[in-house]
Amino acid sequence: MIGVFDSGLGGLTVVRALMESLPDYDIIYFGDTARTPYGTKSSETVIRYALQNTDFLINNGANIIVIACNTASSVATPEVTGKYDIPFFEVITPAVDHSLETTKTNNIGVIGTRATINSGVYERKIKKKRPDAKVYSKPCPLLVPLVEEGWMKKPETKMIIKKYLHPLKVSQVDTLILGCTHYPLLKEAIQSKIGKKVNIIDSALTVAGRVKTYIEANPDIDNLLTKHGKTEFYVSDITQQFKETASTILKRKIHLKQVKI
Amino acid sequence: MIGVFDSGLGGLTVVRALMESLPDYDIIYFGDTARTPYGTKSSETVIRYALQNTDFLINNGANIIVIACNTASSVATPEVTGKYDIPFFEVITPAVDHSLETTKTNNIGVIGTRATINSGVYERKIKKKRPDAKVYSKPCPLLVPLVEEGWMKKPETKMIIKKYLHPLKVSQVDTLILGCTHYPLLKEAIQSKIGKKVNIIDSALTVAGRVKTYIEANPDIDNLLTKHGKTEFYVSDITQQFKETASTILKRKIHLKQVKI
Repeated sequence: MIGVFDSGLGGLTVVRALMESLPDYDIIYFGDTARTPYGTKSSETVIRYALQNTDFLINNGANIIVIACNTASSVATPEVTGKYDIPFFEVITPAVDHSLETTKTNNIGVIGTRATINSGVYERKIKKKRPDAKVYSKPCPLLVPLVEEGWMKKPETKMIIKKYLHPLKVSQVDTLILGCTHYPLLKEAIQSKIGKKVNIIDSALTVAGRVKTYIEANPDIDNLLTKHGKTEFYVSDITQQFKETASTILKRKIHLKQVKI
Repeated sequence: MIGVFDSGLGGLTVVRALMESLPDYDIIYFGDTARTPYGTKSSETVIRYALQNTDFLINNGANIIVIACNTASSVATPEVTGKYDIPFFEVITPAVDHSLETTKTNNIGVIGTRATINSGVYERKIKKKRPDAKVYSKPCPLLVPLVEEGWMKKPETKMIIKKYLHPLKVSQVDTLILGCTHYPLLKEAIQSKIGKKVNIIDSALTVAGRVKTYIEANPDIDNLLTKHGKTEFYVSDITQQFKETASTILKRKIHLKQVKI
């Protein structure tokens, strides 16, 4: 199966994109809702959690893993990929490549959690591939709680987005990477505040495209993956609010199963 | 020692109050920053965490325990107090008693996290002691992340507080319980939006008063407590932001020690 994990429910945007691009492939999801969010926590703690999540997915049938959390992708990718001998996908590299394809001015903006932005991973990866690019990064720590409250269209949310994006607008970025899987749910407000002409890169969509291309090019891996169009959703904690958020993101009711990890 | 635990750093408001009312008493604090926040999580998960936190404090010398987290106080008090034979203090009852002393109209407002408000614990305790009281409760889940970002004085925070408090203002409460240890840090904005005449009950101050009264009345317990004016601060995760928030709340630099629990 294709295994996907996230700090919570934002990674369901990646599952949604995978279900659209690979509708027959079985997917197993783990959302660490008992310890969410990761974006405010230290690298050491996020690495420990990422290893536990990966163990859970592999023990339950995952043959490839998508790290659908920007924070975990930013700080835990070397540790996780170093420990297991299966294909891994993280959400950073596909978004970086896509941003370099679309930018015309080489002025690229990145928004994410504090942990993601502090890691500097987007800037490093962009500069490695295009040394003359200018990268403007901004941590937006309140956007995850706003999405999880369902405040996507509230005026307060728009004001906060405007405040966060102001320095990127002043820097005249022509491309903006949404460096957090929750942010696609705020895409409309973000597009309106950053300006219509700015290309917005949604890391959920780009990683799903990358997984599809990889599977098509690697029939030996493809043969390992079951294809009954099944999806299984595991979380480390369940509340009514988590159920509602999951349904909002996937645009349909889903059954969440609780596991202790 | 006096042991104090919280889901994160908000409980330091209780430590601050204890240091003022009992300056000689040694205090050991545990903040579960690796799994913070509790207020969005299920009762089952919060109970599990509360038992682990209590074990840590007792194993490290605590002879009495203050549950400085409204969410844990709301959902985990029976489980925690049932397991150990030492005195426990939670933050709900002292605030309820204080609100009943100050209200003149018996119209009492309560704000807190989603878990605290959904537990209905404030309403139950108030109604048990004064059946004709009217209790108006409102979950305010964005206030904890706003405090943790240090956005205490930002206009967006004031707008969000105004929106949350609107139904309580309409209900003409004359007393408002701050049912979350983070909220005292927003007291000024809350007072301004709810109105100057409303009495605000700060659960950090009231529980510290309760602990002092108990110790004075129980010399056998008092004899067990060491009095070197020492404070030890343990957390399950450390970041720069956590250090800054801790210093903001305690109004001085403190040394946080990381432990895995």
